[in-house]
Amino acid sequence: MKNSIGNVPGLAVIMVGQGRDSQTYVRKKLGACEEAGIQSKISTLPDNCTEDQVLNALSCFHEDPSIHGILVQLPLPQHLDEGKILNSVQLEKDVDGFHPINMGNLAMWGREPLFLPCTPKGCIELLIRSGVEISGKKAVVIGRSNIVGLPTSLLLQRHHAIVSVVHAFTRNPEQITREADIVVAAAGVPNLVRGSWLKPGAVVLDVGTNPVKDPSCEYGHRLIGDVCYEEASRVASAITPVPGGVGPVTVAMLLLNTLESAKRAYNFT
Amino acid sequence: MKNSIGNVPGLAVIMVGQGRDSQTYVRKKLGACEEAGIQSKISTLPDNCTEDQVLNALSCFHEDPSIHGILVQLPLPQHLDEGKILNSVQLEKDVDGFHPINMGNLAMWGREPLFLPCTPKGCIELLIRSGVEISGKKAVVIGRSNIVGLPTSLLLQRHHAIVSVVHAFTRNPEQITREADIVVAAAGVPNLVRGSWLKPGAVVLDVGTNPVKDPSCEYGHRLIGDVCYEEASRVASAITPVPGGVGPVTVAMLLLNTLESAKRAYNFT
Repeated sequence: MKNSIGNVPGLAVIMVGQGRDSQTYVRKKLGACEEAGIQSKISTLPDNCTEDQVLNALSCFHEDPSIHGILVQLPLPQHLDEGKILNSVQLEKDVDGFHPINMGNLAMWGREPLFLPCTPKGCIELLIRSGVEISGKKAVVIGRSNIVGLPTSLLLQRHHAIVSVVHAFTRNPEQITREADIVVAAAGVPNLVRGSWLKPGAVVLDVGTNPVKDPSCEYGHRLIGDVCYEEASRVASAITPVPGGVGPVTVAMLLLNTLESAKRAYNFT
Repeated sequence: MKNSIGNVPGLAVIMVGQGRDSQTYVRKKLGACEEAGIQSKISTLPDNCTEDQVLNALSCFHEDPSIHGILVQLPLPQHLDEGKILNSVQLEKDVDGFHPINMGNLAMWGREPLFLPCTPKGCIELLIRSGVEISGKKAVVIGRSNIVGLPTSLLLQRHHAIVSVVHAFTRNPEQITREADIVVAAAGVPNLVRGSWLKPGAVVLDVGTNPVKDPSCEYGHRLIGDVCYEEASRVASAITPVPGGVGPVTVAMLLLNTLESAKRAYNFT
């Protein structure tokens, strides 16, 4: 792209506050951009910034023709209206796919969202590349967050899976999960899914990234998933580890969305 | 409302073509408006009209301050881009709730759609008024259309049901349905759901309205549901009939959405 038209894709990140996890994620995303030849810009705002400051940062990136994707690093501090801010991201630059129009078009048949949210897109990519059939299979998504559980269930449905969503109000999550051919764990509860929750041969995608204290690690903690890997890997036919599973693929999908957006902007095929 | 502020709610219907079913539905909707004191206007366009003609009709109703709700009667003829037309309905008048922003906000947690689609809203209303607990219950939605199956599954999830969506790619719909406490049949297949599909005591909402030939009836056909009522009513603890079940409640929800929209427009509480 650089050689052909002299332009590269550009990604902008808006980060509010100094959350350690957010900083780590953002660092990974920006590092990946550099490796892939994607230009990146970052706007860091203090923890106590106003909504207007965030919206102003958004406006700058909306007007910047070198930026093709904008992501607002979540979670935002409590005093900011996350819905309002995400709704303000220009649809054409919404590489996270969290705008309600993108989400509505993801949900509805015969509509095409401009961008698929990165983690769900990564999950499907992992399944397809691993040769896992989705159509007609029973899938259980554990968790129903706007950024993972919900869009993953919608995307699996688009691929013709029979999807059940398990959440905190589910009395027998173990029993429901045990019926699934494909399990996506995105509840944010460390080691929630035990070996006994899985049907032998199930395919397991672990989206959880839960920090647990571990003094032997560099930062005093390490990340573990929502799935008890040791137990699950004995029952599942395939399973993603944490870290090193869905996470890096999610970052790759972010780069892919940014690239697609830039191609659209420059009419480059 | 009329006595207090001198205004009544107004509903506009855009109908393309002369489909008999559409005419019947529209007649029912307009009749219900009259009964409820809601003003109604209708724009009828020929079967071979252009997209621009439909969009022009929409524009007129957008600008008309006496109109608070607009519905485009579906299905539209094949040559019209249904998605484009529904996306053009002004969000504040989208009483059918089919705009992707409304659908996205229905899907996402912590967001409030301006309008809930009428059939799903009616289904929930029926459950609540009949004292059926939804939270924590297993619900199966059969069918995944944009106008019924999809939004009903999203709305049931909002009410904390554990929802599975069954569709044409499902190999064992009977088995999955038999696990449900609440069954919503919206596949458009007459008598699809037999008594053997149901768990004893299940609650059944039949959204199907399938015309079958019957020379003894006035128009040479009668409507039957997606559920074999005779069999199902022996197994279910509650069941809606067809006709006379979900249909009239759907119309009532349309009136309610129009009223809510008018209240919003006139700032009337």
